[in-house]
Amino acid sequence: DFAKVDHHRALRNGFPEVIFCQGKTVEQVVKIFHSLAEKNRNILATRAGQEIFEAVQAQYPEAKYNVPGRVVSLTREHCKNSSRRVLVLTAGTADIPVAEEAAVCSEVMGHEVARIYDVGVAGIHRLFAYYDKFETAAVLIVVAGMEGALASVVGGLVDVPVVAVPTSVGYGANFNGLSALLSMLNSCAKGVGVVNIDNGFGAAALADVIIRSGLKHV
Amino acid sequence: DFAKVDHHRALRNGFPEVIFCQGKTVEQVVKIFHSLAEKNRNILATRAGQEIFEAVQAQYPEAKYNVPGRVVSLTREHCKNSSRRVLVLTAGTADIPVAEEAAVCSEVMGHEVARIYDVGVAGIHRLFAYYDKFETAAVLIVVAGMEGALASVVGGLVDVPVVAVPTSVGYGANFNGLSALLSMLNSCAKGVGVVNIDNGFGAAALADVIIRSGLKHV
Amino acid sequence: DFAKVDHHRALRNGFPEVIFCQGKTVEQVVKIFHSLAEKNRNILATRAGQEIFEAVQAQYPEAKYNVPGRVVSLTREHCKNSSRRVLVLTAGTADIPVAEEAAVCSEVMGHEVARIYDVGVAGIHRLFAYYDKFETAAVLIVVAGMEGALASVVGGLVDVPVVAVPTSVGYGANFNGLSALLSMLNSCAKGVGVVNIDNGFGAAALADVIIRSGLKHV
Amino acid sequence: DFAKVDHHRALRNGFPEVIFCQGKTVEQVVKIFHSLAEKNRNILATRAGQEIFEAVQAQYPEAKYNVPGRVVSLTREHCKNSSRRVLVLTAGTADIPVAEEAAVCSEVMGHEVARIYDVGVAGIHRLFAYYDKFETAAVLIVVAGMEGALASVVGGLVDVPVVAVPTSVGYGANFNGLSALLSMLNSCAKGVGVVNIDNGFGAAALADVIIRSGLKHV
Amino acid sequence: DFAKVDHHRALRNGFPEVIFCQGKTVEQVVKIFHSLAEKNRNILATRAGQEIFEAVQAQYPEAKYNVPGRVVSLTREHCKNSSRRVLVLTAGTADIPVAEEAAVCSEVMGHEVARIYDVGVAGIHRLFAYYDKFETAAVLIVVAGMEGALASVVGGLVDVPVVAVPTSVGYGANFNGLSALLSMLNSCAKGVGVVNIDNGFGAAALADVIIRSGLKHV
Amino acid sequence: DFAKVDHHRALRNGFPEVIFCQGKTVEQVVKIFHSLAEKNRNILATRAGQEIFEAVQAQYPEAKYNVPGRVVSLTREHCKNSSRRVLVLTAGTADIPVAEEAAVCSEVMGHEVARIYDVGVAGIHRLFAYYDKFETAAVLIVVAGMEGALASVVGGLVDVPVVAVPTSVGYGANFNGLSALLSMLNSCAKGVGVVNIDNGFGAAALADVIIRSGLKHV
Amino acid sequence: DFAKVDHHRALRNGFPEVIFCQGKTVEQVVKIFHSLAEKNRNILATRAGQEIFEAVQAQYPEAKYNVPGRVVSLTREHCKNSSRRVLVLTAGTADIPVAEEAAVCSEVMGHEVARIYDVGVAGIHRLFAYYDKFETAAVLIVVAGMEGALASVVGGLVDVPVVAVPTSVGYGANFNGLSALLSMLNSCAKGVGVVNIDNGFGAAALADVIIRSGLKHV
Amino acid sequence: DFAKVDHHRALRNGFPEVIFCQGKTVEQVVKIFHSLAEKNRNILATRAGQEIFEAVQAQYPEAKYNVPGRVVSLTREHCKNSSRRVLVLTAGTADIPVAEEAAVCSEVMGHEVARIYDVGVAGIHRLFAYYDKFETAAVLIVVAGMEGALASVVGGLVDVPVVAVPTSVGYGANFNGLSALLSMLNSCAKGVGVVNIDNGFGAAALADVIIRSGLKHV
Ligand SMILES: Nc1ncnc2c1ncn2[C@@H]1O[C@H](COP(=O)(O)O)[C@@H](O)[C@H]1O
Ligand SMILES: Nc1ncnc2c1ncn2[C@@H]1O[C@H](COP(=O)(O)O)[C@@H](O)[C@H]1O
Ligand SMILES: Nc1ncnc2c1ncn2[C@@H]1O[C@H](COP(=O)(O)O)[C@@H](O)[C@H]1O
Ligand SMILES: Nc1ncnc2c1ncn2[C@@H]1O[C@H](COP(=O)(O)O)[C@@H](O)[C@H]1O
Ligand SMILES: [Mg+2]
Ligand SMILES: [Mg+2]
Ligand SMILES: [Mg+2]
Ligand SMILES: [Mg+2]
Ligand SMILES: [Mg+2]
Ligand SMILES: [Mg+2]
Ligand SMILES: [Mg+2]
Ligand SMILES: [Mg+2]
Repeated sequence: DFAKVDHHRALRNGFPEVIFCQGKTVEQVVKIFHSLAEKNRNILATRAGQEIFEAVQAQYPEAKYNVPGRVVSLTREHCKNSSRRVLVLTAGTADIPVAEEAAVCSEVMGHEVARIYDVGVAGIHRLFAYYDKFETAAVLIVVAGMEGALASVVGGLVDVPVVAVPTSVGYGANFNGLSALLSMLNSCAKGVGVVNIDNGFGAAALADVIIRSGLKHV
Repeated sequence: DFAKVDHHRALRNGFPEVIFCQGKTVEQVVKIFHSLAEKNRNILATRAGQEIFEAVQAQYPEAKYNVPGRVVSLTREHCKNSSRRVLVLTAGTADIPVAEEAAVCSEVMGHEVARIYDVGVAGIHRLFAYYDKFETAAVLIVVAGMEGALASVVGGLVDVPVVAVPTSVGYGANFNGLSALLSMLNSCAKGVGVVNIDNGFGAAALADVIIRSGLKHV
Repeated sequence: DFAKVDHHRALRNGFPEVIFCQGKTVEQVVKIFHSLAEKNRNILATRAGQEIFEAVQAQYPEAKYNVPGRVVSLTREHCKNSSRRVLVLTAGTADIPVAEEAAVCSEVMGHEVARIYDVGVAGIHRLFAYYDKFETAAVLIVVAGMEGALASVVGGLVDVPVVAVPTSVGYGANFNGLSALLSMLNSCAKGVGVVNIDNGFGAAALADVIIRSGLKHV
Repeated sequence: DFAKVDHHRALRNGFPEVIFCQGKTVEQVVKIFHSLAEKNRNILATRAGQEIFEAVQAQYPEAKYNVPGRVVSLTREHCKNSSRRVLVLTAGTADIPVAEEAAVCSEVMGHEVARIYDVGVAGIHRLFAYYDKFETAAVLIVVAGMEGALASVVGGLVDVPVVAVPTSVGYGANFNGLSALLSMLNSCAKGVGVVNIDNGFGAAALADVIIRSGLKHV
Repeated sequence: DFAKVDHHRALRNGFPEVIFCQGKTVEQVVKIFHSLAEKNRNILATRAGQEIFEAVQAQYPEAKYNVPGRVVSLTREHCKNSSRRVLVLTAGTADIPVAEEAAVCSEVMGHEVARIYDVGVAGIHRLFAYYDKFETAAVLIVVAGMEGALASVVGGLVDVPVVAVPTSVGYGANFNGLSALLSMLNSCAKGVGVVNIDNGFGAAALADVIIRSGLKHV
Repeated sequence: DFAKVDHHRALRNGFPEVIFCQGKTVEQVVKIFHSLAEKNRNILATRAGQEIFEAVQAQYPEAKYNVPGRVVSLTREHCKNSSRRVLVLTAGTADIPVAEEAAVCSEVMGHEVARIYDVGVAGIHRLFAYYDKFETAAVLIVVAGMEGALASVVGGLVDVPVVAVPTSVGYGANFNGLSALLSMLNSCAKGVGVVNIDNGFGAAALADVIIRSGLKHV
Repeated sequence: DFAKVDHHRALRNGFPEVIFCQGKTVEQVVKIFHSLAEKNRNILATRAGQEIFEAVQAQYPEAKYNVPGRVVSLTREHCKNSSRRVLVLTAGTADIPVAEEAAVCSEVMGHEVARIYDVGVAGIHRLFAYYDKFETAAVLIVVAGMEGALASVVGGLVDVPVVAVPTSVGYGANFNGLSALLSMLNSCAKGVGVVNIDNGFGAAALADVIIRSGLKHV
Repeated sequence: DFAKVDHHRALRNGFPEVIFCQGKTVEQVVKIFHSLAEKNRNILATRAGQEIFEAVQAQYPEAKYNVPGRVVSLTREHCKNSSRRVLVLTAGTADIPVAEEAAVCSEVMGHEVARIYDVGVAGIHRLFAYYDKFETAAVLIVVAGMEGALASVVGGLVDVPVVAVPTSVGYGANFNGLSALLSMLNSCAKGVGVVNIDNGFGAAALADVIIRSGLKHV
């Protein structure tokens, strides 16, 4: 009874409860994984260390592990939620772990994902080189640390929702992600919604509900 | 040349530049209003005092003023962007000005808006009384100050995007909206995107692009 | 003379001084433990590592160790301070260590304790499933990290004191517990008293004095 | 419909919804007052300016106004919730407005109140002069700004709950009450529960539920 | 003796002491102005209200007042420190007062100034339209509030020093300029030096010494 | 009974309680003034507006008012606590109000005071011009805003205690005195004790006890 | 040339430069130690690990190491600066390391030191038990973490200078010493000077100059 | 495709992209190094651990490693950008790592570098001893932690640009470099531009563009 697994979540929110591994023992994670896997087809566990993956894999050999993103996933049913694409951008290479958390969660939630990494504003031509790719996306997830300016620049260029993910990448006056967070919250561009620092999962979850709600209400 | 009005914005972002009146003189606002009104049908000016409204109205008698929301609007074409609804909720009565900024911007952007005000979590039955209304919405805008808990509770109940707007309502350790902002960023509910403190306009703009992008990509 | 043990504390505050182990050497803790055990029946040491427990147990074989809560306890007299119950709730599984510190301290202080863990607001039906249990409690201790919304929701439902314990569970803009702390301080629900981040002991101590003072003054 | 008055609150929480006037228009406050006064005997409105009092008094001539505490109250039934006393202490004279908010709310909630003002720790003999009064209290409300040390000193002396109210009194590095707030949260004394900065009402509400719950469960 | 005017400053730093009017009485400013005007040709007073200008003008009829920049200046010798240009950019219209402080100070210090206002990143084509102007500048002063992203984008495009001036323009989580300040300090673009929030004068002073030192050392 | 005047303070701390006027009504201040003046010869009231001075003066015509320092004083006995001197320095002209609070309090406490104002580190020769004056002081009070560097420079030059008073002078990233406060706390110079931001009185009180304690223990 | 040892410091400030070991290599510390030991009799190195002590001791066998205080000292001349006493108090046992840094530095600087540890305000009788000892001190150094209230209580009782040292002892909302720092800065007691968090050396240095300056100016 | 190396950077900004190693794997750094080394002569990688140096050196034996500065560099062309000098100063010995990052980057960018370390303001004569060296510099880079006062003192003495680098050196209320950062931003000296905490590279890059732009525009 250390956990009351929320078995209604897929009904209410469109996807089963996702396991947040930080602060849980390996045993706790495995038990919750079991409980979820009995009633659902696809399972996600984020912030998972290698040892958690191994414990899960011992019982679910088809489980996968995204190393930079630290996500354990079990995909027993390749649902295809839409033909719409989630486009994940990063400002730098060091932002990739957070971006991968977002990307793999999006994939398991049934979305096609495209990745464009390391297109920060210090060399803005790199971003414009991918301009036509923006057209193909239903939602953009913009992952950036340091000054987090990429979200505003991208937001000013597109007419689809931008999910902005500040990262803790940087040092000193980045204050562990505060600089990027404040930048994104103060974006003068339209159509930007912000999630927590380093919260790749949250970005994927928001993108997921944006896309599915778009379909549902047609 | 105090302003370079962004006349491409409607093309790129689906709605003309919205005038942010804070820090501008009445003369500057009126000139930008003119410039925009020459090339666009519907115009919005936010954070506008009564004196700005009067100066605008002198030249555009059909302009309207939302008093609590402090929004001047000119709607020359009642576009109907969708039959989808934006549902605006507030936790308390003091959050209404921010909610009204969101609501009136949504309306001018062509969306049907429903308002449910003063349903904060301290008396949670008030929220559940409106549960069926949630079903009819394409996007929920949740406006809350103090501890901002409403966004998490609502986020846990619905399967559409929640745009969370922290407000500066409260005192002391609310630190002018920081408490609600941090609550919403740390929401354990899925599908919540956060905008700046008191940013009703930003919430409307995000809701707008979510709905239109949902339509576009079908 | 590194410590002036407060031997009057049980007289003044109803329970002997509780040893706060953080920042003390094993030797210091053991000496204070001795000094307290000479004049009191029941002893608590919080924030205690395994090595402290072992050193204490070597001399007091009946000492117990609560592993997640990191509490060493010696209960030589099962006092029964009341038939009233302390109900400890957590929002998530990762909040359990703090909850256990509160729970075990409450038990040693002579109260009956009930635990309901992992009933956070993202799946609020889980909380309502335990609604009738709330009736049986004299005090509720609500332990929550991230957005800490559980304290407000619970506070709105009950007519007994709620002791709110923010935890450092989360990451990014939780700022090590600041988000939950501010939420709880700004709670719009009535009857909520807040203690320090992760301070399970402090919550138990407040619950203890609430219950005993209720009895004393009848 | 700017307000959904919570008419069940007296049932759930033991006292009707209290009107928080800050951020509401005079008209809104008066309407909510009416709505509450139809179904309840005693009404409280906090953070109320003189103009609100006058508008209320025009319709409820028996309404009272506590000037320093800025509380409008209507007491149509002098309920006597207990013979237990709420003792309100302040560190300085400038803390009195917050203390009066707490005191008058406690009185309207049906408790006997004693006040001891200006007994801060810089002249600690002043506090000890009132030591025997502490014995007569069921709950102490300690109101202090600046360094807020009074809560710890008092907490170490008594065996009843201490509700600590940090105030914004001071300047400079008091950071509008942060110094007193942090002091009180970090109190090494047992049995201290903290409410928001300047939140006299919240302290009264916590004291109220502590006392009534003590009675109820006997 | 309320002031020790630093009459060596022009010798050491290339320009006489500039009067910071905030916190000084009109009388004090006028006296310092006198003292400086006796030994120097050109004088600047920043953060000056209209009343200060009038008092100065009464004695120095040739004094000028820049209204948005709040700068009083006396230029008795149109020195021409270089043929190099200081280019002042702003992200929005509300940033103009700070930009004007920088511009007028630069002019009085003997530099040619070009202004490009309202070219923020939300409509980035506006910025690129002025790309060739960047070539003509020896130093760029970039003035931006909200997310302050303009400094990074500009910094990535040019090979001259960028002096970044965060402004307090915005609201909520801009925390009075903190968001723009942190953005600029964390800029991933090369060659950006930051001055205090709203410090137009400081930007001009840095640009001045950059240009003059470039000349001096040839 | 809004105040428990601490009539033992002169005995315990060498000078009667000083009235902190902020947050007190004129009537309250006058009553406390009376109460103190009955049992003490010399009285100080800080943070006093003109209206407080007038009310005091009506009854104590010999009372004085220091306008920039906002101190009301009554000196009925020109005690001479020592032949030692308190030297008050400021970095700028805008720091003078805080310095005057310190200076006048020191004088009333019976010390000889010398003032050297506007000798900030940007023109460090101004400071060195007064080097020999440092020799004559028993304590230095260094009052500085902005970067507060003066305390470190002075602290490195003298062999007497330096009382550092950060001021809120400045703007932007001075965060109302935080910059100077942190500078002074982190001073790498020896022998610096810091008081609250803008706390001229506190500096005088510390200087007073340093000097008197030096005499007492000989 | 990684260091310019300040060989004039004993002349200017009464004691040679003290080596701050944090951030220096063992080799750097040893070289600076040598350089100082050539021209001075007594040397102090603070924040020194065991390995630094061993390297110093290899060359100066008479060097001593204070383990909790992490201070390496060389006392070749037991100067006796005065018969006045420095009294070091702590609130808790965990504050002892900081107190020992202060105590051993005071001793090497030639002062008699008395220690009274663990007399925090939660059991205030412990403090009063040592009241007569206060009389014998020329300066009190008060070391406290958590809410840091001890400085105010002590400051209210004595008529000698109080040097307040906030410590990082505690957790959660102590924010690594911020709570105690703010408490001490906002002390309503007279005669309190604050040094940096955990800065035992700084407290000793201030006490030293207070005592010596008291002697010098007689 | 984890990196889009910005091969135009040398064209736009005068030096190729510099590799920021923090948060990148050794493999990623080596690949980016290759990619840059194919098109450029001189390469810099900052924040590089020993293991990165070894992997680079295995393929580029002429690569060098600056141990305290943690910079890997490859200089295949000793370009001489000017005869102007970058002068790097530190306040203390612990600031040397940051200073070395600045110095080695400046050297590889083609500038002559002079170093003056450990001349902090607590012993200000040490600084003046090097006064004539200031004359020879085109730009000064001032590196300081703790109270960061060196930047203001130096800024007041010279007529060339000062690039101020706050460091995280210190403890307690330095808040990891915040104190030095705020000091430098609030400098009352003219001609100071600030970069991020510990950002030696950024300082070098700003100095580089200042010098080259000075040459270019002659
Ligand atoms: N020590 C440093 N601090 C800050 N930025 C750096 C540093 N070293 C390199 N950079 C910048 O970091 C950028 C690379 O970021 P990324 O794309 O994440 O590799 C480059 O454009 C450099 O200008
Ligand atoms: N300007 C001041 N700043 C800080 N404390 C002060 C000031 N003036 C007087 N005080 C102190 O404030 C205390 C009075 O506070 P209160 O009881 O609120 O009147 C006195 O004990 C004084 O020591
Ligand atoms: N209430 C608002 N809050 C935040 N941004 C706004 C608001 N109203 C308009 N804006 C944005 O502010 C921008 C104009 O800024 P400016 O150039 O300073 O006038 C427009 O592009 C709008 O997208
Ligand atoms: N986990 C805890 N958190 C906060 N305070 C505690 C904790 N455990 C014990 N204490 C208190 O810490 C005090 C002891 O502090 P010390 O004198 O440093 O040992 C006791 O008076 C307890 O009331
Ligand atoms: Mg890159
Ligand atoms: Mg309501
Ligand atoms: Mg859970
Ligand atoms: Mg008082
Ligand atoms: Mg604009
Ligand atoms: Mg001056
Ligand atoms: Mg203790
Ligand atoms: Mg040094």
